[in-house]
Amino acid sequence: MSPVPDGTPPAWPDLRALLEDTARQVDLALPRYLPEVPPAAAPLDAAMCHSLQGGKRLRPFVVMQAAETYGLPGAAVLPTACAFELLHTATLIHDDLPCIDNADLRRGRPACHLAFPEYAALLAGDALLIAAFGALAEQGRQAGVAAERVLRVVAEFAHHVGAEGVIGGEAADIAGEKKAPDADLLFFIHRKKTAALFVAAARAGAILAGAEESDLDRMTAFAESLGLLFQVTDDLLDATSSAEALGKPAGADAVAGKQTYPRLLGLRGAQQYADQLAERALALASALPARTDIWEGLVRLVLTREA
Amino acid sequence: MSPVPDGTPPAWPDLRALLEDTARQVDLALPRYLPEVPPAAAPLDAAMCHSLQGGKRLRPFVVMQAAETYGLPGAAVLPTACAFELLHTATLIHDDLPCIDNADLRRGRPACHLAFPEYAALLAGDALLIAAFGALAEQGRQAGVAAERVLRVVAEFAHHVGAEGVIGGEAADIAGEKKAPDADLLFFIHRKKTAALFVAAARAGAILAGAEESDLDRMTAFAESLGLLFQVTDDLLDATSSAEALGKPAGADAVAGKQTYPRLLGLRGAQQYADQLAERALALASALPARTDIWEGLVRLVLTREA
Repeated sequence: MSPVPDGTPPAWPDLRALLEDTARQVDLALPRYLPEVPPAAAPLDAAMCHSLQGGKRLRPFVVMQAAETYGLPGAAVLPTACAFELLHTATLIHDDLPCIDNADLRRGRPACHLAFPEYAALLAGDALLIAAFGALAEQGRQAGVAAERVLRVVAEFAHHVGAEGVIGGEAADIAGEKKAPDADLLFFIHRKKTAALFVAAARAGAILAGAEESDLDRMTAFAESLGLLFQVTDDLLDATSSAEALGKPAGADAVAGKQTYPRLLGLRGAQQYADQLAERALALASALPARTDIWEGLVRLVLTREA
Repeated sequence: MSPVPDGTPPAWPDLRALLEDTARQVDLALPRYLPEVPPAAAPLDAAMCHSLQGGKRLRPFVVMQAAETYGLPGAAVLPTACAFELLHTATLIHDDLPCIDNADLRRGRPACHLAFPEYAALLAGDALLIAAFGALAEQGRQAGVAAERVLRVVAEFAHHVGAEGVIGGEAADIAGEKKAPDADLLFFIHRKKTAALFVAAARAGAILAGAEESDLDRMTAFAESLGLLFQVTDDLLDATSSAEALGKPAGADAVAGKQTYPRLLGLRGAQQYADQLAERALALASALPARTDIWEGLVRLVLTREA
């Protein structure tokens, strides 16, 4: 049974409101973790701000809800939540550069390297990446969060976003272009390029809240399923939607000859795989100690998203 | 009086041996802080290793000697020392990319984006930048170093290398190309692009060793002079030396129309400015509580370096 039978009205109006509320909190907090760029380097500031606008703030939401799941108010981990959005935005800017995806549209606006000189886009990505770690360090100044926990988050973040995680997945994504569809490679790319950041986000919130190792294992399994689901639906949307709806290029994966599930399994097969991932994620969500309704709603939202 | 009168033989044979010994320690430790790149992302691993080879490891040396100056063995801060080399190498890779300096030679080898596909160079820079923070976090596992001190180093590192520091200086460097020589802009570029990393390195070692705030102020003033001196001699070498001697392009600043001291003051004026910076650095070194001979020797070495 598909987790969202056709015709069922969305059952998470509160979740949408909560997502929007979180996005507003994050948007208000983000400027605190942005460097004060001196006038001589002004294009950098403009490029960073340009690219930060318009995101769904889904990864910060995961950080904050993971903290709530283990008893710490989401607001207490806002610096860490912002770190994930800063890092995510940095990777989007670099991903869109001519030597990677050469994409012209992102978050409904011109890609950073088209709105600004390419050097400014490259350095804005670097600056946001560094600012992400600055925001993590700021988490150490929040009352009630021990420095040891924050340091563990820094270490795990570096592991999950570096060459063993997101950056490694991106490299494999490019290296795999125009090669025959390969199920193992594709799973690797999705796990690293996308799921690693969801895993890092969920673990970061849980670690800061003082979750036990067994809790972290459960959170990791859930977040990995959610992240894989997110990327499969991303592939499906690229194959079936429009640039106008997505705010980024559509159909680009096929043009680039990327490893994707629609290419490996066809549209119907990819949708079935997405449904399976959602069922698995729902089962794992139901085993979490709190906020199961929010996590389950998030899974359904990602499965049925249109952008 | 110039601090190194003509004809005086170098008076720091031991310093050269110490620098070489430190470089070996750093080279042996660096692999510990490099991510294990999965085979699907192999070009990333090759690109990182390619670019890490051949450096003088000057910034790690500053970290370790700063720790020694305040009573902590240099070996105890090796993870942090490695972090500075990882970050420095990342900035060199990105600096050499076509959209920034488009340089073909670095550390006596082909620039990363010429030895590997450009996407691999871009992502290798990102991966090394992230690995730098991973290495800083590893410092927290060293016995005898409190997590609070490590977190402070992470926060200061992010500040000094991001848009308020190194990255901001690079952006100003590019934005200032082909503009009329501007003394204020040039000083800003040198302070951010180069001196900020020396300042961060000296402060990191001192912070980990438990130096007082007044000590940190002294260390900062010295390291800033040393870093400014390093960049002026870099400008002079670019104007007067060869690619063979430097292991990177020579004469490139003039071609790019960069803001440099030789362009602002002429070769003689730039050399006089370097001498002044060296004198100031020597005076500041003599006020440090220990290792003054090493710091003074380092100043003379940077002033008279040929590569």
